[in-house]
Amino acid sequence: MAVNAQRFLDDLHKLREFGAAGVGKGVVRPAFSDADIAARRWLADRFQEAGLQPHFDPVGNLFGLAPAPSLLMGSHSDSQPEGGWLDGALGVIAALELARSSQRPISVVSFQDEEGRFGVTTGSAIWSGKLPLAQADDLTDHAGTRFGDARARMQSLTQDFVNPAQFTGFIEMHIEQGPILDANAEAIGVVSDIVGIRDMVIEFSGQQNHAGTTPMHLRRDAFQALTIFNGLINERFRNVVTPQTVWTIGHVELSPNASSIVPGRVRFSMQWRDQDTDRLARMESIIRTTAQEVSESIGGDAQFGPMLGIEPVEMDPTLRRSLEHGAQTVALGNWRVMPSGALHDASNVAALMPVGMLFVPSINGISHDFAEDTAEADLVTGLKALEAALADR
Amino acid sequence: MAVNAQRFLDDLHKLREFGAAGVGKGVVRPAFSDADIAARRWLADRFQEAGLQPHFDPVGNLFGLAPAPSLLMGSHSDSQPEGGWLDGALGVIAALELARSSQRPISVVSFQDEEGRFGVTTGSAIWSGKLPLAQADDLTDHAGTRFGDARARMQSLTQDFVNPAQFTGFIEMHIEQGPILDANAEAIGVVSDIVGIRDMVIEFSGQQNHAGTTPMHLRRDAFQALTIFNGLINERFRNVVTPQTVWTIGHVELSPNASSIVPGRVRFSMQWRDQDTDRLARMESIIRTTAQEVSESIGGDAQFGPMLGIEPVEMDPTLRRSLEHGAQTVALGNWRVMPSGALHDASNVAALMPVGMLFVPSINGISHDFAEDTAEADLVTGLKALEAALADR
Repeated sequence: MAVNAQRFLDDLHKLREFGAAGVGKGVVRPAFSDADIAARRWLADRFQEAGLQPHFDPVGNLFGLAPAPSLLMGSHSDSQPEGGWLDGALGVIAALELARSSQRPISVVSFQDEEGRFGVTTGSAIWSGKLPLAQADDLTDHAGTRFGDARARMQSLTQDFVNPAQFTGFIEMHIEQGPILDANAEAIGVVSDIVGIRDMVIEFSGQQNHAGTTPMHLRRDAFQALTIFNGLINERFRNVVTPQTVWTIGHVELSPNASSIVPGRVRFSMQWRDQDTDRLARMESIIRTTAQEVSESIGGDAQFGPMLGIEPVEMDPTLRRSLEHGAQTVALGNWRVMPSGALHDASNVAALMPVGMLFVPSINGISHDFAEDTAEADLVTGLKALEAALADR
Repeated sequence: MAVNAQRFLDDLHKLREFGAAGVGKGVVRPAFSDADIAARRWLADRFQEAGLQPHFDPVGNLFGLAPAPSLLMGSHSDSQPEGGWLDGALGVIAALELARSSQRPISVVSFQDEEGRFGVTTGSAIWSGKLPLAQADDLTDHAGTRFGDARARMQSLTQDFVNPAQFTGFIEMHIEQGPILDANAEAIGVVSDIVGIRDMVIEFSGQQNHAGTTPMHLRRDAFQALTIFNGLINERFRNVVTPQTVWTIGHVELSPNASSIVPGRVRFSMQWRDQDTDRLARMESIIRTTAQEVSESIGGDAQFGPMLGIEPVEMDPTLRRSLEHGAQTVALGNWRVMPSGALHDASNVAALMPVGMLFVPSINGISHDFAEDTAEADLVTGLKALEAALADR
């Protein structure tokens, strides 16, 4: 039985009604909100109708279970506080449509709190064993609500954790959330790997002083140190990075941050991502050496916070080959292999079983915003690529 | 009659007891605090003993009036919230000692709120006519107290404003608050001018985006724009500035200021000071042109806030010559002519009469801090330079 493109689009639009923002196609459906729980109840009914057994685990991950063994497909149905209609939802509804239409047994999942109200990809991190439940329960959101209290809201629905051994692999479809496919007018991206991420807070100390009486040549200005550091690493990364590597200084905090005082201290975030662990390490070494060098040049000091990081995850070669076959079948010469710069539930699930991912374009690369969208033709092409990939297995 | 160095130092130490911080020689004596009012009452008694007529004006400026016409000397006795013992106090006590010892009539003044609890050099700004009293009354401190309510605390002491026509000129002695004299082991600085200041908030807008999925070459990163701007103006100022010119980016505010988001906006302060109005204008032109250029290069936008500024003030040539004579008499070859990078009450008084200023060193250039200090030998040298300057007139 072939996928039903209209049914798939209709379900996507129905899911969009839960937490509809009233601004474009945007949705407001953060993990454990009323809209999120209502959407999961609605999904559970759809799973039931499709002949799957609905199953909520203790942290709100919703499964639609086919008889074991089966392939698992899906993503997440929670959203950012101001989210788009496709981020996560697309992967869940596509999986549902494939479970309905495929000959082989396919289970579906919507992980909980991928968007990180409480942590980072919280639901799949707990299920995969990366994040112990007791530790997760003490995580709090920005308003101070504990994860433990939030998940208690779904207690009447939940059963035990699902045993991952019943799944033969995991495929996640997702919007790209970046501009590559859209800019190149390509319909599909087959993900090669999810990049690794490194994140570190750095602090430069100089000497706070009077902005009127301190001559330029005697200043030990922490903000000037930051700008010198930024220029130097941009220069020194050149021989190390690829066009896929990214790095960002997104958070900056001067002290005392007053217009007539030479800043004595600056704390800033340094984040970098790449699909190669060695490259991440070479970048770290440049960052540390340069920070030391710059802070010494102003007679100051550099402090490094703890290194946070998630390792790069390679997609399973067999699943990837099937997805490439599917892409080639429906979008001949109009697709590419690409890394994912964003994190996804698949990063966690990779600890349990082989995983593969498939991207469709985001218009103008926009995501995490009410304006997020993808042409419906591209949504359907993605669905058909998945269908063709399954036929290949 | 010669100045009495011991009496002068004793009075400085006595004044220090009002609001003594208990940390080094630090004082806590903000305008209109109990300690400030008690110190002013004590000063009024000392003025009386010296044969001067104590006179509080409606905003708390305290004069010790000699028979008209007279020279006026002094500074301020209020302090920063965490201040040093000499900032302001030195000029008042030195003036008192000279009024006691000089043959010619010398009036003394301690202006109120030079340190800007409510405004900028508030007391002398009102007396000089720059700041209307009704407008000043509505100024508030950080806690929300109105200037009008604060000055009411001294109402029982106050009389009318003093007529400035009775003074032939104004001389203010002050600590340098910067490192020049200390670094060069010089005893005295004769001030040539008080520099002008320009202050402007600038905002760059780029495009906020995902720090994982946005390739470097497609970013419109507002923080990167700021660092490029900073590098360019540092370069372009080279042909315009003198070693006395200063400029500072002291306040920076990224938006949304999150480690995994490419910053879409940055607001920052740009402040620059110089003794030459034309140079200040040339620097402004470089700043505006460069900001436009940089914001266009990231396909973004630059917004400029209102230009705030105080014009440079030249010291009176005759008074300056006398002070140079005094410096040369007591510190042969061991003094310099220099601009003041900090504002002082003399900036305002210059609107009413000829003004001159004399600096003594600050150890390590520290000021506005409990650690502020000056060697007692340097304090006495400064006093004797004033004495010699008066003998020259």
